[in-house]
Amino acid sequence: MAFQTAPLETLIEQLERLPSIGHKSATRLAFHLLRASSEEANALVEAIVNAREQIRECTVCCNLADSEHCPVCAAEGRDRRTVCVVEEPQDVGAFERTREYHGLYHVLHGTISPMDGITPDKLRIRELLYRVANEDIAEVIMATNPTVEGEATAMYIAKLLAPFNIRVTRLAYGIPVGGDLEYADEITLRRSLEGRSDLT
Amino acid sequence: MAFQTAPLETLIEQLERLPSIGHKSATRLAFHLLRASSEEANALVEAIVNAREQIRECTVCCNLADSEHCPVCAAEGRDRRTVCVVEEPQDVGAFERTREYHGLYHVLHGTISPMDGITPDKLRIRELLYRVANEDIAEVIMATNPTVEGEATAMYIAKLLAPFNIRVTRLAYGIPVGGDLEYADEITLRRSLEGRSDLT
Repeated sequence: MAFQTAPLETLIEQLERLPSIGHKSATRLAFHLLRASSEEANALVEAIVNAREQIRECTVCCNLADSEHCPVCAAEGRDRRTVCVVEEPQDVGAFERTREYHGLYHVLHGTISPMDGITPDKLRIRELLYRVANEDIAEVIMATNPTVEGEATAMYIAKLLAPFNIRVTRLAYGIPVGGDLEYADEITLRRSLEGRSDLT
Repeated sequence: MAFQTAPLETLIEQLERLPSIGHKSATRLAFHLLRASSEEANALVEAIVNAREQIRECTVCCNLADSEHCPVCAAEGRDRRTVCVVEEPQDVGAFERTREYHGLYHVLHGTISPMDGITPDKLRIRELLYRVANEDIAEVIMATNPTVEGEATAMYIAKLLAPFNIRVTRLAYGIPVGGDLEYADEITLRRSLEGRSDLT
């Protein structure tokens, strides 16, 4: 039933590969992209290409960056003695939106999950230990997701940090267990920051 | 609050311009596109660029095509004496999926809507009249949407076709199959009563 022209079929197929885009959404997006102005279509294509070309990891915290340091590490007036360890770059955004956290971050880019082949060496744990060993850090807040993998990763890292004799804390369980940090609301996140407790 | 790197912010902004993509969906899509393989990302970008470059209108029916004729007009074994007039190219897909219609189409690319500045000359009505005047067409089925604009457009075109002395029909109105009578609106029910057919 090839009743649609091949370039359109291909575009719909490619859009369907995106997360939570089904066939109907992909079709609607494809027709939109066909009808859109050159300016709009080119802006989207360039944004994809530029983001992929320019974005790399911050040399300090492994957050996404377009130069040596990410916007948070490059900012002035942050508390450089506190490091909040998160799973993914989008979790940084979740904390920044609380306007309550003024320290730095460390982005692990995942959680330990041996079933999926994600062993500790696949995460940015080495880089975190290097920071703790070489920078003047007073507290590390474990802010991995409240899931089995997130908890295990937090405990694993807390053990590695024990010899450094710094404060290692965990977010309070104001965050709903089994949820995803990325979608937590600001108030819940703020509560969980305030109620953080010592892991060691 | 520029806590995200500029190329990422730009990508999210561009994705948010797409229909029914909000900020959270755009953010999720952006991170997916960053993490995707080069193969996947390039395939999407190329699909957008190729579709926009290669797709034009069929010289016969104004449906989307990548050569002179669209897949339907190019297909063999279609009934070339019946033309189904639809508003948008995606309506062709809706009819093709029925596997019941074997005629050709004519795509208007919109409906008459003076409030939005869409006057009859903005649609492919001229092209339809040319077909009726020059081809051997027996019936034109008006398959515009059952909306105020769709009805007005169908009536307008039907008047223009009257002098050609061919059959001009309109889709049946009635209760949707699988629907619930309780929730059918009065106008639809009235139309389905008027259009009732003999069961025996």
